[in-house]
Amino acid sequence: MPKLVLAYSGGLDTTTAIKWLTVEQGYEVIALNINVGKSREQPVVESRGLAAGAVKVRVIDAREDFLRYFAFPALAAGAVYQDQYPLATALARPLMAKLLVDVAHEEGAVAVAHGCTGKGNDQVRFDVGIQTLDPNLKIVAPTRENAMPREYQIEYLKRHGVDIPWGDKGPFSIDENLWGRSAEAGVLEDPWAEPPREAYEWTRDPEEAPATPAYVEIEFESGVPVRLDGQELGPVELVERLNDLGGLHGVGRIDHIEDRLVGIKSREIYEAPAAVILHTAHAALEAMTLSKQQLRLKKYIATEYAELIYNGLWFSAHHQDLAAYVASTQRHVTGTIRVKLQRGRAVVVGRKAPRSLYDRGLATYDRGDTYDQSAAVGFITIWGLQTRTQVRTQLLADLPEALRIATPHQHD
Amino acid sequence: MPKLVLAYSGGLDTTTAIKWLTVEQGYEVIALNINVGKSREQPVVESRGLAAGAVKVRVIDAREDFLRYFAFPALAAGAVYQDQYPLATALARPLMAKLLVDVAHEEGAVAVAHGCTGKGNDQVRFDVGIQTLDPNLKIVAPTRENAMPREYQIEYLKRHGVDIPWGDKGPFSIDENLWGRSAEAGVLEDPWAEPPREAYEWTRDPEEAPATPAYVEIEFESGVPVRLDGQELGPVELVERLNDLGGLHGVGRIDHIEDRLVGIKSREIYEAPAAVILHTAHAALEAMTLSKQQLRLKKYIATEYAELIYNGLWFSAHHQDLAAYVASTQRHVTGTIRVKLQRGRAVVVGRKAPRSLYDRGLATYDRGDTYDQSAAVGFITIWGLQTRTQVRTQLLADLPEALRIATPHQHD
Amino acid sequence: MPKLVLAYSGGLDTTTAIKWLTVEQGYEVIALNINVGKSREQPVVESRGLAAGAVKVRVIDAREDFLRYFAFPALAAGAVYQDQYPLATALARPLMAKLLVDVAHEEGAVAVAHGCTGKGNDQVRFDVGIQTLDPNLKIVAPTRENAMPREYQIEYLKRHGVDIPWGDKGPFSIDENLWGRSAEAGVLEDPWAEPPREAYEWTRDPEEAPATPAYVEIEFESGVPVRLDGQELGPVELVERLNDLGGLHGVGRIDHIEDRLVGIKSREIYEAPAAVILHTAHAALEAMTLSKQQLRLKKYIATEYAELIYNGLWFSAHHQDLAAYVASTQRHVTGTIRVKLQRGRAVVVGRKAPRSLYDRGLATYDRGDTYDQSAAVGFITIWGLQTRTQVRTQLLADLPEALRIATPHQHD
Amino acid sequence: MPKLVLAYSGGLDTTTAIKWLTVEQGYEVIALNINVGKSREQPVVESRGLAAGAVKVRVIDAREDFLRYFAFPALAAGAVYQDQYPLATALARPLMAKLLVDVAHEEGAVAVAHGCTGKGNDQVRFDVGIQTLDPNLKIVAPTRENAMPREYQIEYLKRHGVDIPWGDKGPFSIDENLWGRSAEAGVLEDPWAEPPREAYEWTRDPEEAPATPAYVEIEFESGVPVRLDGQELGPVELVERLNDLGGLHGVGRIDHIEDRLVGIKSREIYEAPAAVILHTAHAALEAMTLSKQQLRLKKYIATEYAELIYNGLWFSAHHQDLAAYVASTQRHVTGTIRVKLQRGRAVVVGRKAPRSLYDRGLATYDRGDTYDQSAAVGFITIWGLQTRTQVRTQLLADLPEALRIATPHQHD
Repeated sequence: MPKLVLAYSGGLDTTTAIKWLTVEQGYEVIALNINVGKSREQPVVESRGLAAGAVKVRVIDAREDFLRYFAFPALAAGAVYQDQYPLATALARPLMAKLLVDVAHEEGAVAVAHGCTGKGNDQVRFDVGIQTLDPNLKIVAPTRENAMPREYQIEYLKRHGVDIPWGDKGPFSIDENLWGRSAEAGVLEDPWAEPPREAYEWTRDPEEAPATPAYVEIEFESGVPVRLDGQELGPVELVERLNDLGGLHGVGRIDHIEDRLVGIKSREIYEAPAAVILHTAHAALEAMTLSKQQLRLKKYIATEYAELIYNGLWFSAHHQDLAAYVASTQRHVTGTIRVKLQRGRAVVVGRKAPRSLYDRGLATYDRGDTYDQSAAVGFITIWGLQTRTQVRTQLLADLPEALRIATPHQHD
Repeated sequence: MPKLVLAYSGGLDTTTAIKWLTVEQGYEVIALNINVGKSREQPVVESRGLAAGAVKVRVIDAREDFLRYFAFPALAAGAVYQDQYPLATALARPLMAKLLVDVAHEEGAVAVAHGCTGKGNDQVRFDVGIQTLDPNLKIVAPTRENAMPREYQIEYLKRHGVDIPWGDKGPFSIDENLWGRSAEAGVLEDPWAEPPREAYEWTRDPEEAPATPAYVEIEFESGVPVRLDGQELGPVELVERLNDLGGLHGVGRIDHIEDRLVGIKSREIYEAPAAVILHTAHAALEAMTLSKQQLRLKKYIATEYAELIYNGLWFSAHHQDLAAYVASTQRHVTGTIRVKLQRGRAVVVGRKAPRSLYDRGLATYDRGDTYDQSAAVGFITIWGLQTRTQVRTQLLADLPEALRIATPHQHD
Repeated sequence: MPKLVLAYSGGLDTTTAIKWLTVEQGYEVIALNINVGKSREQPVVESRGLAAGAVKVRVIDAREDFLRYFAFPALAAGAVYQDQYPLATALARPLMAKLLVDVAHEEGAVAVAHGCTGKGNDQVRFDVGIQTLDPNLKIVAPTRENAMPREYQIEYLKRHGVDIPWGDKGPFSIDENLWGRSAEAGVLEDPWAEPPREAYEWTRDPEEAPATPAYVEIEFESGVPVRLDGQELGPVELVERLNDLGGLHGVGRIDHIEDRLVGIKSREIYEAPAAVILHTAHAALEAMTLSKQQLRLKKYIATEYAELIYNGLWFSAHHQDLAAYVASTQRHVTGTIRVKLQRGRAVVVGRKAPRSLYDRGLATYDRGDTYDQSAAVGFITIWGLQTRTQVRTQLLADLPEALRIATPHQHD
Repeated sequence: MPKLVLAYSGGLDTTTAIKWLTVEQGYEVIALNINVGKSREQPVVESRGLAAGAVKVRVIDAREDFLRYFAFPALAAGAVYQDQYPLATALARPLMAKLLVDVAHEEGAVAVAHGCTGKGNDQVRFDVGIQTLDPNLKIVAPTRENAMPREYQIEYLKRHGVDIPWGDKGPFSIDENLWGRSAEAGVLEDPWAEPPREAYEWTRDPEEAPATPAYVEIEFESGVPVRLDGQELGPVELVERLNDLGGLHGVGRIDHIEDRLVGIKSREIYEAPAAVILHTAHAALEAMTLSKQQLRLKKYIATEYAELIYNGLWFSAHHQDLAAYVASTQRHVTGTIRVKLQRGRAVVVGRKAPRSLYDRGLATYDRGDTYDQSAAVGFITIWGLQTRTQVRTQLLADLPEALRIATPHQHD
């Protein structure tokens, strides 16, 4: 029998998939459980996978790799999709695609499988990633090809001797990893309705958060967060602490209408305390250490970067080019940002950087000013020269329209 | 004696300027006080101006024009400088330049004057605006040309018989209008220090704001806010209400390191409750009513637009082009956004729009789904085609470097 | 029998399609021949269509609409795909989609059809256009669904009693309209081989063109070409003359590797004398009449515009936004450009515009100079301020790397 | 006496400057002649410099450094200012600034000087470069500070005992180096007039060029040109050969209205045979080896890069970021481009690359096609989804305006 490696979460959909791939499709299924944070308990995953007929269940702890090679580069890039979504799920998919292909090669499998539906973004991220890394692997997507309602799945498993207590279906469709949690579907599909309390799990309601703020000092080295309050931490511990602390203070809730790659708008609820705090702090450090020109272009590249990740094109030369650009910008993004967490807000209240471009001597209006004010008149003369020429030759020619932009008609 | 029109606030700097322009420069000074919100009382302004030797004090209430022709178009454009600053002062300067020129023409003046220093942005906005609208008017900038310390100004006025009680100099340099308040200088120049309580005046400390949230429904027509909670309001009243309500709930504080046009980074504290609430709501309405392509390009244009305003190029053909683009995008940005104000946060909790692109039938995972899932496989095949070609021909050729972007090295 | 409107060229593919749609698919076929320039003779088209079984052959002369509403707006936008392709075919497709839908409504048809294959761009442009304008119309694409080799098509027609002498298959796949001609396939698929003489039909080999150059003065009004050598001409005549004149002088050949929307690179040979001459002239006029800022942003928008057209998204709100922007930029793009045509080159040798921003008084190094040179030092001081700060605080810190960009190591 | 290093060309302006700096300003002048191609003869330069009073004349052959570290990186970046100007002079200025500063340090000088006027771009490039590399060096610009007419300069030198036969002033202001030659001023200031024959010096009139074309095969390695017709050549020889060959065939003339940094439009005539041929070839190689996404973004970066160079910001962190991006894109830009030079045109007629993304198997319409046509329908369904939604919900609501973009009103 040909071998297939399935991305296995231990949930009902992929447990059913093991059985279906074995029985209906004739594969020997290796269930691959990839831990990118917030996974089910390993013994549960293993026993369910084997019960459903997997010939092997493999568990990989990919949490540190996920942060170091996927989430932190996206942080350095400032990659936030549509100014709202820190891309938690989107960042995990190429890592999973890579591990599926690696394990398929190790196991001598001819196919890989994932549990995505046909209308989301994740199918694109999985399929493009896998096809890119090994175009010879067949991809099977049981949910997309043969969607079964929940009750039918349970019944199907029972019929094949797999009797596991599945509990109730939750009210939402959930995905989570260290970089964030997403909830969609159900009552969230009404964009006029405020999300119910149970839509949130990682974060307290801001009103129930402690009145006393927490302060945290985050230290970056070349754009990578390395210390909290002076203590050096590995990526996993650093992010977990910020998720906990931020969650306690109600920080990191996002309620957003988002454009999926496939042309659909959907309403998404995210919780991402660590990602929100780190992006806020990182941006504040860049405001001190990058020039105005760098900030302007990097903002443009950040949009490009976020779309690339969202759209499943992680494994591309275009990505490598953007990564080279971002790495260059981060050389001096080293310093400490002080963040106040309180009642749902993460606010920067202090920043320092050894190579800051902020220069008090230039900025101050006090004595000690080192700025040459006499230069200003010459600067302005030249700065406005073409605009003056244009008004004289073009705009005054059709004045009413031309100055319409600012024509307060009646005054006094 | 030649006539000069001075932009007059009623404060010490411009009161001194009246005297200086009259005595040292030999002008007949017409003091022009432009009310864009938060002005001093008119009788005070008039008596001070006359006392200092102005031949005339004119007061113009430009609040509605300011919002209608300057702030609201910037709102529709999404113009926020460096993702932080809603541009309150920057938006008022071209209006003031326009009124200075208009009044100079009415009064037969040969010169205009403003109180800006030589190291800020406002001198550029005033000078370029004035030169653009009438290159023949001479521009005098007393503070830039002949800065006097505060004590010397008071003394100078006294010496010339102007004895007004000026009170203490505040700890910060302040500017304010309906679209926001800015504070800089003093202890704020230390970017590591949290701003003291007295840096804020419009907004309560979020922790002291009411525990009970306020909800407000903001209705837009083609990108312009027209109703609050169903009640039609003129621009001034609408913005004043949101400033009050937002201020009460601690909304609209901004603490930011910003790049001035003249190449200096400075630390700025802003309060802009109405501007922050309206930008938040407007963006949420656009997320529902603009396509993904429109959102992407408009974000780029918003940056361009914000820089143009910040950099003092309001009266330019480039601005007219951007305004035409923005006007086109706003045709269907009509609808209602429900915002929750609580403890310093303005959060969108509901949105509805008659011409929304959000389509529950497409988005849902429920029955009633109208999306054709079978299209997905074809889409993905083509979407990933060039990336697959590239990996095959280019990236696999130098694999370690090429896949470095995502190489979790050790697992299991 | 249900009615179907077929986009009919009179060629073998679409003639076969008439028969196939009638016989195999059971439609009453209305053959719609749309003339966008370079069409077959109308009597031939009509007789072939009727011979193949069409119930009706309709011919629409859409040449002027094509230029006025499709090609000229693209010219004003500067829309040239990948800096090479003036988009001739791409611009005609949305017009054809619109006419197919209009005629389908007039005729009470339930379906429309086109002759595109499944691997090009045109299928996307047709399908998206049609679906956009009327999602209820069924789209049939005989070539995509049921490709028949040429010999089989001829045989198939004969078998059904349609015996037309088809002549030899040409060596290339050709499309042409007033805005240009494209050739692909055959020996052109070898990108190392120079295209053979027979790949070109509209243009003389530059070496065989007249030695004596032709000069033509092209006059634009608000971005639209309206006169040649002082003579007012309608769009069709103006473009035909430039195609003839340019072709005579060998102007307008393009040899290009292009990215199709579907992820394939292909080698394309275009001939577009009028489009090349007009784009060259239009750009030269903009260089005189738009400010530096306008030129920079418009270049970016031109890329966006070209991609939108190439990618089949003509009927979109995004297009309307871009069109509003472009229209604003063109207000003063009025003037005359003198172009020299010689041996394959179209070179601008003179330009004049009533509202030119070129100001000899500013530019000259002669007497009469109106530029204030003393302003330059102040300008430079401020222009370079942040860069100086950055070098001092950041780059000198790691000098070898930082100045690597310009380190001529050894000299003397 | 304090020492000063002057950028010395050997021409009248800088020879006068030596005397003026010595006599009026009291400097010991070290004349630094930097050869970036097309310099005056070294003995002439040395004797003139010493005659005018320089304490030392130093000559540096910087030609190879100029190409390797300045021109070729700009080539790889695709940096062409306003789509016309290959930036020859602009690229040489930062190199000269660097050498001025280096030599000033070696010689213990306190000041540097250059001969630029106050209305061009070069003063900005020199001043910002020098201030950036050593803010402590004083900058003197004799021509800007104390412009003397030509006759007065000759007289001034004579008066101080320097009697050199200067010949006639040419009709234009010229600058040249290996990357190109520029001419401006004089009759060229009339933008309606075709440049006279004597405006060109490097290139034959295309009509007088040989009828027989030349073919040249240019080989690039990672974006850098390394071989001509199979022969490995150093940068200087490679560029000189292409300048000669291109000049012979009339290739490389540019006639352009350009925006100077200081807000002035000026008419420039350039000759740049090698630069034009190499940019043309390099772009054709990128069309084969970069993905569509890479090409799109790189075009945007190229504009940014060209502006940075033009605007004198070579020594900046922003430049380093862009250079890192470009370097990443060039990894696979390796291959050979065949260019035909004939009568003023450089046309690509063949291209091959070992890691080309052009895949005949995908592109072909012949047998052997490896593209899956059935994917197209699914792709199109999703590609057009949001546009369809938008037309249904928004555009059909106001049809006449919405479809105005493409409304051929009357037909039949």
